[in-house]
Amino acid sequence: MTDYDARCLIETAHALADAAREATLMYFRSAALGVENKAGQGFDPVTRADRACEAAMRAILAERRPDDGILGEELDNIPSRSGLTWVLDPIDGTRGFMCGTPTWGVLIALADATGPILGVIDQPYIGERFLGGFGRAEFTGPHGGRALATAAPRPLSEASVFSTFPEVGSPEEGRAFAALAGQARLVRYGMDCYAYALVAMGHVDLVVEAGLHPYDIQAPIAVVEASGGIVTDWQGGPAHGGGRVIAAANPRVHAEALAILSAAA
Amino acid sequence: MTDYDARCLIETAHALADAAREATLMYFRSAALGVENKAGQGFDPVTRADRACEAAMRAILAERRPDDGILGEELDNIPSRSGLTWVLDPIDGTRGFMCGTPTWGVLIALADATGPILGVIDQPYIGERFLGGFGRAEFTGPHGGRALATAAPRPLSEASVFSTFPEVGSPEEGRAFAALAGQARLVRYGMDCYAYALVAMGHVDLVVEAGLHPYDIQAPIAVVEASGGIVTDWQGGPAHGGGRVIAAANPRVHAEALAILSAAA
Repeated sequence: MTDYDARCLIETAHALADAAREATLMYFRSAALGVENKAGQGFDPVTRADRACEAAMRAILAERRPDDGILGEELDNIPSRSGLTWVLDPIDGTRGFMCGTPTWGVLIALADATGPILGVIDQPYIGERFLGGFGRAEFTGPHGGRALATAAPRPLSEASVFSTFPEVGSPEEGRAFAALAGQARLVRYGMDCYAYALVAMGHVDLVVEAGLHPYDIQAPIAVVEASGGIVTDWQGGPAHGGGRVIAAANPRVHAEALAILSAAA
Repeated sequence: MTDYDARCLIETAHALADAAREATLMYFRSAALGVENKAGQGFDPVTRADRACEAAMRAILAERRPDDGILGEELDNIPSRSGLTWVLDPIDGTRGFMCGTPTWGVLIALADATGPILGVIDQPYIGERFLGGFGRAEFTGPHGGRALATAAPRPLSEASVFSTFPEVGSPEEGRAFAALAGQARLVRYGMDCYAYALVAMGHVDLVVEAGLHPYDIQAPIAVVEASGGIVTDWQGGPAHGGGRVIAAANPRVHAEALAILSAAA
């Protein structure tokens, strides 16, 4: 891939994120949201905003990148003819979106056969964008921009750990997480993809989750790794297929956390 | 109190919030934060930002309102000679602030002998302000402003419930919360004072917490009640002293939740 190709792909990722901002903000904190339950049992919400946002991004890809594949949360997969696939989560954190919290995000990744090579985490309401890949790790927000860089190593006993749900996943997964969380200085919940953005920015040491889909994690992998972090499954293997994920600011805190998780899980 | 007095007090509350924005944003996501642990055991963080923010607000009150009392989280109490007391939490959600999350807030309340009569919840990074009292219930944010109004009644089985920590408080308090949470449609954690702002805005039905201080809850009480909600302790009594608190969008969901909490606690 040439530098020009990379710049075009980054420009397309920004165009997708810009379209997603417009589509989601039409519905955020609006009575027009239209929440439906996708799950047969339990509650797995989808809104008009999820569908409108994914459709807006797909329209851009249909025009610009017709040979690339698309793997999205809400609509059918499109197989790749180029070797590249866009992995889209139009709203990561639909529950938070429904409740008006500002920590949901739009996730956009570009993957080849090895996994994600470019990722964007965008928070439309605040106006924050985290991009990583092709040698870049960049943040822009309402008070300016900066390069992204993860935190320097510190012991787990001084580290902050985030997960979206306190139960984390299955009871076994929850026990493994609790073993890790009990040794950290600070544990927080409820941030969805925003927690990975905070790892990339150097403010959070670890995010640990389970039961993820590929579209939940591919953009965070690209952003966190471009910023100096490391993202694997709970055995230290690749995480881009989803499932159990640990994102760490640096290899040292990753190793310390992985030893606890892999022993407990 | 005349209308003119009320307008001056609202204007002073805005001046405090403006000063707090500047003081906190100097430190937010900055290496100059300087986290210290206030607790003998465990972790109760305070930062340079908490102290600088409270000092900035007190300087304004010393000049404008020398006869009013001040009850603040970080500095000594000043008794009231006017019958009015400003109740200040310079950073509600210091843990989230330390981790770079955008859902901490500055809490400013004005109380008389009956409890809070004016409150502001301000989120400096996003640029959002929620104000309630003296007949006003107002929001301003990065995408414009609107009047605040809580949600219409819906059954607990369709409601969203927020709390900052999943353990909520003591084991007994945690069990009471779990009894309530198990009947709600959606439960989220980790938002600190932002959850009360979302009740005032009509997006969240219930916030339930325990172990609160007066400065944690007086501003949320004023904002939520001015917006049409109701805030009490877990027995239905006044909540401005802190402790166990339930904030509800309307009397119907308040009654349904209170019946569960008061039976379990």
